[in-house]
Amino acid sequence: MDIEKLKQKNLELTKKKVKESVSDDQLIINTINTIEELDKTLNSLSMRLRDWFSLINPETEHQLQDNEILLKVIVEDELQKSEMGAVLKKQDKEQIIKLAANLKNLFEYKNSLEVYLEEVQERHIPNIQDITGTLIAAKLLREAKSLRKLATLQSGTIQLFGAEKALFRHIKTGARPPKYGFLLNHIIVQNSKEKGKTARALADKISICARLDYFKGERLGTKYFEELKEKWKK
Amino acid sequence: MDIEKLKQKNLELTKKKVKESVSDDQLIINTINTIEELDKTLNSLSMRLRDWFSLINPETEHQLQDNEILLKVIVEDELQKSEMGAVLKKQDKEQIIKLAANLKNLFEYKNSLEVYLEEVQERHIPNIQDITGTLIAAKLLREAKSLRKLATLQSGTIQLFGAEKALFRHIKTGARPPKYGFLLNHIIVQNSKEKGKTARALADKISICARLDYFKGERLGTKYFEELKEKWKK
Repeated sequence: MDIEKLKQKNLELTKKKVKESVSDDQLIINTINTIEELDKTLNSLSMRLRDWFSLINPETEHQLQDNEILLKVIVEDELQKSEMGAVLKKQDKEQIIKLAANLKNLFEYKNSLEVYLEEVQERHIPNIQDITGTLIAAKLLREAKSLRKLATLQSGTIQLFGAEKALFRHIKTGARPPKYGFLLNHIIVQNSKEKGKTARALADKISICARLDYFKGERLGTKYFEELKEKWKK
Repeated sequence: MDIEKLKQKNLELTKKKVKESVSDDQLIINTINTIEELDKTLNSLSMRLRDWFSLINPETEHQLQDNEILLKVIVEDELQKSEMGAVLKKQDKEQIIKLAANLKNLFEYKNSLEVYLEEVQERHIPNIQDITGTLIAAKLLREAKSLRKLATLQSGTIQLFGAEKALFRHIKTGARPPKYGFLLNHIIVQNSKEKGKTARALADKISICARLDYFKGERLGTKYFEELKEKWKK
């Protein structure tokens, strides 16, 4: 086999590997990154839309706290001015309605992306998703970088995912060590009086779920969730 | 006139004042704020889109430096995978194409908003816009908060708009004082070897333009622009 052939073969193998390297892990990580970016975007552009809206309808801007409802009002009412609202030219209004329409599309896209994330996770990490919910599952996976790695981690590591800043502060300054990161947002931890202990117990179960998912084992996530919920209710 | 009537009259006057208080100043300030927010948004969401695109076409992602061109390729080619690209399911691709479509709309909206800004400034601050260009004019107005205030400022203040951080550093630590803020982005300052002096001369003319616009004077912005360009060319 001459050198040229060897090179050719090598190149083909590399291309094949690159092609196959895209996994559900990467799809999930890309999706949660995009969702988080959209969240930031929607917040900051909604603030700008509120600036505009309060010129035209200063009375009700603060009553419409929810951004999605504000958008609906603007798009459907076509920016009817209120008693105290400014009289704007048609071309001025057009720009504001266009902003609202774009934001509405982005909201819808974000919602569809969350449904999509749930679907990918249903096939890749069903047990983890059952016990943590869609968004926390994705954040844990992103932190570990892959399901393979997540399945090999100690539960104490999983418990502290998302608390890296506080952990380093603890190591450097001797401040109190953190008890939870992303898991603080979990409904069971939220509702518990002993948040640290609950996060610990939850992380234990997540660690088992990660192994079940990696080795394509049974579907026990929901059972674990119910057990934890019963044990740590207020 | 009894108290009730006085109250009523007072309320009416206040409402009238609020209604009339929306001026071209505010339209311009809202528009430049929205444009800047869109710039940030488009950059960060384009980064996320690149993450996706490089899964499917790792060979050409880095060749498409311009985000608008990248979008065009994705939307028109419907994400044809390259030789080394990953094979994605239809539903995976759909999400990516939706992101690209949303971004394309946002780019178009941003462009239309710049045209709109130019129109409002054409009626409100034509001389300033002629000498500084659309975006710098809006930033200077925003900094001053209104044309009325901009017309009363010394040119030295206008010269340093956008350089507040450096100015405070100078005052606190005695570091070298700044020579320009937003004006550094002006084409004539960019092309000049003596940027400080050029910014100074430009600020002088902007200050005159602000007064011309405020008092609805002659249209001299373009003449000043040409004079400066001639004087400070390399």
